[in-house]
Amino acid sequence: MDAETLQFHAALSDAATRTEAALADWLPPEDTTLGAAMRHAVLSGGKRLRAFLAIESAAIFRVPAAQSLRTAAAVECVHAYSLVHDDLPCMDDDDLRRGQPTVHVKWDEATAVLSGDALQTLAFELLAQPQGSIDPRLAVRLVLRLAQAAGAAGMVGGQAFDIAAETTAVPLDLDSIRTLQSLKTGALFVWSAESGAILGRSDPEPLRAYATALGQAFQIRDDLLDVDGDPEAAGKRLQKDAEQGKATFVSLLGVDGARQKAHELVSAACDALAPYGSAAGNLRGAARFVLTRGN
Amino acid sequence: MDAETLQFHAALSDAATRTEAALADWLPPEDTTLGAAMRHAVLSGGKRLRAFLAIESAAIFRVPAAQSLRTAAAVECVHAYSLVHDDLPCMDDDDLRRGQPTVHVKWDEATAVLSGDALQTLAFELLAQPQGSIDPRLAVRLVLRLAQAAGAAGMVGGQAFDIAAETTAVPLDLDSIRTLQSLKTGALFVWSAESGAILGRSDPEPLRAYATALGQAFQIRDDLLDVDGDPEAAGKRLQKDAEQGKATFVSLLGVDGARQKAHELVSAACDALAPYGSAAGNLRGAARFVLTRGN
Repeated sequence: MDAETLQFHAALSDAATRTEAALADWLPPEDTTLGAAMRHAVLSGGKRLRAFLAIESAAIFRVPAAQSLRTAAAVECVHAYSLVHDDLPCMDDDDLRRGQPTVHVKWDEATAVLSGDALQTLAFELLAQPQGSIDPRLAVRLVLRLAQAAGAAGMVGGQAFDIAAETTAVPLDLDSIRTLQSLKTGALFVWSAESGAILGRSDPEPLRAYATALGQAFQIRDDLLDVDGDPEAAGKRLQKDAEQGKATFVSLLGVDGARQKAHELVSAACDALAPYGSAAGNLRGAARFVLTRGN
Repeated sequence: MDAETLQFHAALSDAATRTEAALADWLPPEDTTLGAAMRHAVLSGGKRLRAFLAIESAAIFRVPAAQSLRTAAAVECVHAYSLVHDDLPCMDDDDLRRGQPTVHVKWDEATAVLSGDALQTLAFELLAQPQGSIDPRLAVRLVLRLAQAAGAAGMVGGQAFDIAAETTAVPLDLDSIRTLQSLKTGALFVWSAESGAILGRSDPEPLRAYATALGQAFQIRDDLLDVDGDPEAAGKRLQKDAEQGKATFVSLLGVDGARQKAHELVSAACDALAPYGSAAGNLRGAARFVLTRGN
């Protein structure tokens, strides 16, 4: 590993440790089923790539760490809520997530619905709490943009689109898959990266462009891992896409075409970071990591 | 009907009309299943008591109507989302709501989960949008308080408490039912009423006290209607509490005791409005209405 890659891994691990410690403080106690389920959903591991993006994009602008820890924790709450609801029997019906039983398996469906609901609420609460000393004008902008990224015109819209696509006879074409992915996973990546520019009172466009390309590369890698990944390392069932006859970047571009496309996207992501020079070293490391990650 | 009651009904109807018109503009279009389900959930009637509380409490402080229309619409989105999720088969399993098929019956469970999710997001989006010209410092406070009222320490916590109570052998006592109700329905009533004081830069305590008493009287009336209400007028199945052997204000206080308690609470609610004099006439009308409402 080169020095920048090593530094990226240290930064990713540090972001995860700090975000998880903050979340452990900010989540409700586990003395109720609801609290225990929320903690299980959020604190059962994961790479914390979204938290890392929020923390590293803010670091470019020397935003105080107490502020970016809030945005990092908020986006991890939204991500965790979406996974809990996506795993429900009426949606993807997954029993395992990161090698652990999913919330509706460990408890029940009602607890999964409610703990997901309360995690979404917590994300907005974390952005609005005065303790982080985020300027209210910036906090409102973060709330607005997170709501747009997470709601009907973003993540939830993408999930609904995905479900609708499963029931139509014609498989999706490349443009539709790109749109679906940009809503379903891209929107939260983009919010994570732009949150740093919002806190830093800077133009969010370069970071949005970076995260748009990164999110798409991430999804392509996910599709590739579904084809040839190691289920034990992934901690979840694989080859679901092919079983379900689902159109993916891989089914449309082929394995080599998809790998090529991911490389191009990672180059584009790194190019978008040019304005920030060496301050964006860890974000460049993240882009390269997406190409090689094992699960 | 006396003049104040007549004026209350006109104000309630006006609040409903204006809030529904605004929501019809702000909800996603119905050209997708998700948008259609969100619109069905929010625009299928209801008294709009929470919207009325938001609008009338703001009117006391002469807050511009464009601002209180946002708080009114936001709380109706949260209320609607909670109903969609509560109606799911894994929760209360209700097929009818306001005389209409519930979202999971009209579409499917996945659509009910996702449309509820997106409605919660929309509530926060509405509070954070710049068009209403709400001072960002006030918008952040509204977001924070709504998140606290709706989340694990509020509405969702109450719903989880309710489900947990159903599976324990010992029925709840009066204090536990009061706590449960203050979370499950009280918290949104309180937020609606205090939102006007927040927008009016005034002490929210009197309006919080008013809404706390009002919310409890409302729940007692709900329990009474479940015993002797008209299912056709209610647009939903009744006598579920007794069937399920559920402890309620009525099972613990008896019908007469519950009626007496509701009267005392309505008096307390009206007393809390004393600082506002005649400007709170419609809120007093709402308190009296709660005692007599038919469904």
